[in-house]
Amino acid sequence: MTQNLPSTSKGAESAGTAAAPVRAVDVIRKKRDGHELSADEIQALVQGYTSGDIPDYQAAAWLMAGLLRGFTRSETAALTDAMLRSGEVLDLSEFSPKKVDKHSTGGVGDKTSLVLAPVVAAGGLLVPMISGRGLGHTGGTLDKLESIPGFNVNLPVQEFRRVLRGCGCCMIGQTAEIAPADRKLYALRDVTATVESPYLICASIMSKKLAEGIDALVLDVKTGSGAFMKKEEDAVFLAELMVETGERMGKKVVALITDMDQPLGLKVGNSLEVEEVLDVLQGEGPADVRELCIELASWMFQLGGAVPSLDEGKQRAAQMIDSGRGLAKFREMVKLQGGDLGAIDDPKKLPRAKHTLEVVSPENGFVSAIACEAVGTACVILGGGREKKEDSVDPAVGIVLHKKPGDAVSAREPIATIHYNADSRAEQAKTLVQESYRISGAPPEAAWPLVHRVIQGSGGKN
Amino acid sequence: MTQNLPSTSKGAESAGTAAAPVRAVDVIRKKRDGHELSADEIQALVQGYTSGDIPDYQAAAWLMAGLLRGFTRSETAALTDAMLRSGEVLDLSEFSPKKVDKHSTGGVGDKTSLVLAPVVAAGGLLVPMISGRGLGHTGGTLDKLESIPGFNVNLPVQEFRRVLRGCGCCMIGQTAEIAPADRKLYALRDVTATVESPYLICASIMSKKLAEGIDALVLDVKTGSGAFMKKEEDAVFLAELMVETGERMGKKVVALITDMDQPLGLKVGNSLEVEEVLDVLQGEGPADVRELCIELASWMFQLGGAVPSLDEGKQRAAQMIDSGRGLAKFREMVKLQGGDLGAIDDPKKLPRAKHTLEVVSPENGFVSAIACEAVGTACVILGGGREKKEDSVDPAVGIVLHKKPGDAVSAREPIATIHYNADSRAEQAKTLVQESYRISGAPPEAAWPLVHRVIQGSGGKN
Repeated sequence: MTQNLPSTSKGAESAGTAAAPVRAVDVIRKKRDGHELSADEIQALVQGYTSGDIPDYQAAAWLMAGLLRGFTRSETAALTDAMLRSGEVLDLSEFSPKKVDKHSTGGVGDKTSLVLAPVVAAGGLLVPMISGRGLGHTGGTLDKLESIPGFNVNLPVQEFRRVLRGCGCCMIGQTAEIAPADRKLYALRDVTATVESPYLICASIMSKKLAEGIDALVLDVKTGSGAFMKKEEDAVFLAELMVETGERMGKKVVALITDMDQPLGLKVGNSLEVEEVLDVLQGEGPADVRELCIELASWMFQLGGAVPSLDEGKQRAAQMIDSGRGLAKFREMVKLQGGDLGAIDDPKKLPRAKHTLEVVSPENGFVSAIACEAVGTACVILGGGREKKEDSVDPAVGIVLHKKPGDAVSAREPIATIHYNADSRAEQAKTLVQESYRISGAPPEAAWPLVHRVIQGSGGKN
Repeated sequence: MTQNLPSTSKGAESAGTAAAPVRAVDVIRKKRDGHELSADEIQALVQGYTSGDIPDYQAAAWLMAGLLRGFTRSETAALTDAMLRSGEVLDLSEFSPKKVDKHSTGGVGDKTSLVLAPVVAAGGLLVPMISGRGLGHTGGTLDKLESIPGFNVNLPVQEFRRVLRGCGCCMIGQTAEIAPADRKLYALRDVTATVESPYLICASIMSKKLAEGIDALVLDVKTGSGAFMKKEEDAVFLAELMVETGERMGKKVVALITDMDQPLGLKVGNSLEVEEVLDVLQGEGPADVRELCIELASWMFQLGGAVPSLDEGKQRAAQMIDSGRGLAKFREMVKLQGGDLGAIDDPKKLPRAKHTLEVVSPENGFVSAIACEAVGTACVILGGGREKKEDSVDPAVGIVLHKKPGDAVSAREPIATIHYNADSRAEQAKTLVQESYRISGAPPEAAWPLVHRVIQGSGGKN
């Protein structure tokens, strides 16, 4: 059962001598014993696994050893590089604007990508965005986009280029060509309890994002009750890891640690979130969504060299929204990706749930907190998200919040509305949302700011 | 890819309610996070893996998590029990004598099993011995037995019983019926760098030994330069684990920590070691082999209730050897297992290497040490052992030592003889043996005793 790997030692190759082959079992043992792996060993393992020369069981043992022993910064960069090089790295040098992207670690009601791509493209940069689907209590950009009738997120690379040429932004799912090692490793991690390693998470995210051929990346690392990383220190650790890894690979990267202790905006659920995106692109919508979009866009503009300062980045983002140019760009993108513009111009034509159910406040008082993950889970229960990757998603269902932390409420006043199609699930979701609200006699202390802190590497400061 | 396991919760079954199924990924995660697994979880995992319901990659991740996190004593006993119950547990209740066995963790020149089985059977107990093959620098009992022309170690269980009925002892290899979980897990551990866990080693050894249907077990845990556990503390840790596990499962178990800092006896290699066994069974042969056999046999006699004290156990062992009854029993066993008695009565008929090569002392002085693993490795190089499980073994080759630590040597005096068939390997083996000898000007300090210490549990003291 033992496998030999082809050696990729550049030193040995350039010297014209044959290096000893790397044996998978030796690489596993070395990581098991807490030693640092060489870039060649990591490359051989990732390449061998992707090609099928190394079996699942050896990769699984290695992943578990890596999760428990951790990786150095050099190893993390080498792993990211190996996964990146397992597939195609897009060459977008035909486009003159700088290429920038944003990635979020996932949250509840987080629809900023749909605002950012058109706004930043309208502001003069290229946004080649490859996104994911929702899993667990968090939503996914692709699911939201697919609630627009006809919108096609499964474009091959050639079509991706065509849309980018047409409007400066394009939003698709991971293609077979991009980082196949990550796809194979992620499926294995999912069933071997090796997902929750910051090093593996970093390599997974960064390998896919850097395969887009971008110059700069803004990371939105969520923390709080609705985030994967509940503790801020964990979010900061991952953020620092991703920033350093990106910079080691020659990219400008910044990470914002942002608040996910309550849902972002008022709407949770796929077509409901598209509605809210359209509100924001029309200069309306909830203040927190607009604020976070402007914050993230300003960093994209600055890292992409479109503006000299963050303040000017914010101004440009606000201009793109308030002038309607962001919305126009969004319409262009929807059209080029096959979406129905009628649903953009009249959001009532987006998928709508058949029924609604009100959640009311049990008493007079103030909303002091919302258990954010519970709201995301309620959306999954309604069919709007996935428990397992194979699950399909109902685009129409979701939750509309009428009250957020700090708001005053009266007894029996509606605080949220459940949008549902299946009667059997509505009550369970309603109970979960009801219980997620904390009502107290006095208004809460000042809330956390939306952006907790900014993590920059040495290169990101310029 | 996720697998559900049948629950084996006895509590839930007896209460007549259905327990939630155990998911492999949850068991992996629990061990990964350092929590104690229940006996039901361990049983479900082992059973699911043995049946093929749990794939290799989940078992591999679990093994690595277990190696790095360790197991409690309860978990180790549950794992041993689950592996034991994965196959047939022999019922030898038809035999009236107590059933005892010995297991060694492996060494260089360790041929005691071939002496012990007939001596202890001659002394009145039943010895149903299931042994292994050599791997790495250590030899294996089955390989040694197979150097006797015609000797069949691959007997099915019915034949095993027949030989036991005939002579009171039988020595075979692991059958398909015995602990199939161990065979499958061991193959996986071998290629996933998860061999070196005392907990997994304990469960592997004890599940196979307890499947023999024995009442008592004497463990010979080797320590020193020729052992797998070079450090005595590691040997003691494993010994305590095995003793406690055996006692939790209702068996009398004792472990002797014995010296493997130099080869046992003078002969290393399969038919060479059978020659030495025949010497010992005739009251001759090296003192250390005889002493260790008498020591181990005395514990087998005592735990098996054949004698009231260890001293009387030693007397009985010596009697069985010096009276020739042990040799007579060995002849019976060889005959019942198809072996050629001609080769027992005239060891010159055992396989013999075509050539010999002398290793001489480079100077006058005293042998102060022998690098024991190197001697074992020299035997492997000659073809007398295995680097990989699939390798075949040359029964004739090996090394005969003429000098042991403490012996005086003169310059150019032969200190060892290499017995070889392939010219290409003789020189390399010779160099290794040559370098394994330390010669110094003065005799060494007093050597370690053969038995470093005895590990008994609460029940083993009776």
